[in-house]
Amino acid sequence: MPKLLILSRDEAEYKRLIGLVQLPDLEVSNNPRECDIVLGEPKLIRDALPRLTALNWVQSIYAGVEPLVDPAQPRNYILTNARGVFGELMSEYVFGYLLFHEKKILERIRTQQAGQWQRPESGMLRGKTIGLLGVGSIGAHLAGTAKHFGMTVRGFTRGSETSSRVDQYLHGNDLLEFVTGLDYLVCVLPRTNDTNHIVNSTLLNALPPRAIFINVGRGNAVDESALVQALNEGKLAAAVLDVFEKEPLPEGHPFWTTANLYMTFHTSAISYPEDLTKLFIENYQLYLEGKPLKYQVDFERGY
Amino acid sequence: MPKLLILSRDEAEYKRLIGLVQLPDLEVSNNPRECDIVLGEPKLIRDALPRLTALNWVQSIYAGVEPLVDPAQPRNYILTNARGVFGELMSEYVFGYLLFHEKKILERIRTQQAGQWQRPESGMLRGKTIGLLGVGSIGAHLAGTAKHFGMTVRGFTRGSETSSRVDQYLHGNDLLEFVTGLDYLVCVLPRTNDTNHIVNSTLLNALPPRAIFINVGRGNAVDESALVQALNEGKLAAAVLDVFEKEPLPEGHPFWTTANLYMTFHTSAISYPEDLTKLFIENYQLYLEGKPLKYQVDFERGY
Repeated sequence: MPKLLILSRDEAEYKRLIGLVQLPDLEVSNNPRECDIVLGEPKLIRDALPRLTALNWVQSIYAGVEPLVDPAQPRNYILTNARGVFGELMSEYVFGYLLFHEKKILERIRTQQAGQWQRPESGMLRGKTIGLLGVGSIGAHLAGTAKHFGMTVRGFTRGSETSSRVDQYLHGNDLLEFVTGLDYLVCVLPRTNDTNHIVNSTLLNALPPRAIFINVGRGNAVDESALVQALNEGKLAAAVLDVFEKEPLPEGHPFWTTANLYMTFHTSAISYPEDLTKLFIENYQLYLEGKPLKYQVDFERGY
Repeated sequence: MPKLLILSRDEAEYKRLIGLVQLPDLEVSNNPRECDIVLGEPKLIRDALPRLTALNWVQSIYAGVEPLVDPAQPRNYILTNARGVFGELMSEYVFGYLLFHEKKILERIRTQQAGQWQRPESGMLRGKTIGLLGVGSIGAHLAGTAKHFGMTVRGFTRGSETSSRVDQYLHGNDLLEFVTGLDYLVCVLPRTNDTNHIVNSTLLNALPPRAIFINVGRGNAVDESALVQALNEGKLAAAVLDVFEKEPLPEGHPFWTTANLYMTFHTSAISYPEDLTKLFIENYQLYLEGKPLKYQVDFERGY
């Protein structure tokens, strides 16, 4: 009988939700040595790996699985990550900040506080061009929301062109062509060796000064000094960052005081146990049937 | 040959755009007495009515046509208003403010300014219920955006049930049932005698305290004292107002200093000449062919 170990700060909630479903033949256990399945957070699972001697399958509740694809760690199990569950939340975050900017909500709050009946002209999403750096399941969802708002969508990927909501795909050496003329650049890239500092001064300088940059992927994608410089020199209008090279962001980091930089702290899309339990159940059925699991991670590629 | 008078602060732009199209047999004129067609702003048109002795058709560039449906004014012409052009902009405005609230953007700006790596849990649109007070072309567009974000949509109308994106319609005496349990209440009502103070203390008290009220319709729909009281007493979480009983909002009006009240000043959806020219051209073709025009206003009903 399959035995499941849950390693998450939301363990009790996962136990409750999985218990509600009465999955066939599944026993939840607290003994790592007897468990063939683990559901949980990559860091906690990495720390438990030496004791997970019966391990067959890990379902990560996060999209990012860096601690587990670390070459120093064993890879003798199937790793599936969380995909297809963050698109909606990411869309809310990204378009919330884009609309906050276009509708000049902060300026309007200040006008109101000053007691002034002023009518600054606000911008709009309609007709704008958004560039998605990375088009997996999250990027595809962002593309759908962009189309709903009447926007043009460009996608930059290594080679895949899976979403029909992307109007134009670019790859390989066409990164500067990809960003030229963009109104919004949104990075949804995972952390891999190939994505290090892909958003550098060359790329930032190629953006129009009206552009907004949003990073909801991973902090390694951004050359942080180059971003501070670009913002200070007015090379782009604003940046919204949910991820950083080092988290928590260190005290004294220039980001804290850079103008037109909006930060949130790795909360753009959190893992709701309801969503992740659904995904786990779907994969558990495939596991029982001996079929390939959904969202398998390629350890070499890193996602 | 039809003769067109343009009465708008954007007259030059309308002339340019209409000139680009080379409409058959249409002459733009500056002489009100010879013009059978007028395109423009309701107030300017009302003031010109005594001189518009050859008038057949008025195309308003606004949705609201109160100055023209005033019973003291002549009604011996066809009046069409602007519809089908504001939905996209209204969606950007309404969902911009809803996301601003749910994503706690202002709180996050303050956390950042305080130099704190804090992660307040943000809310989401997904799963929430929005109530649309009035479901014409704008309401239908708002309903579509709400469905895109995974929300449930209730609509309150006099009787029409034209949009399939509305999950549940209510009418007549079911106003309190309509608002019960709503997360968001959005008023899109035109100014008529039937809509005066429809948002009163009874209705506001029936909303859950977590609810947000947005008015992008007309100011007469809201009992402004009742709204101030409801906000002060925590009967609802926030209000976003683009329209007021008296515009500009008078100095000293309690709205200026009421907490959790966000104001913009009749700019939620402005009339872009590109959009309005398209609508005018469509109606002009129908006019030439002697067919019924789109979006005819019922003078008695007021919209």
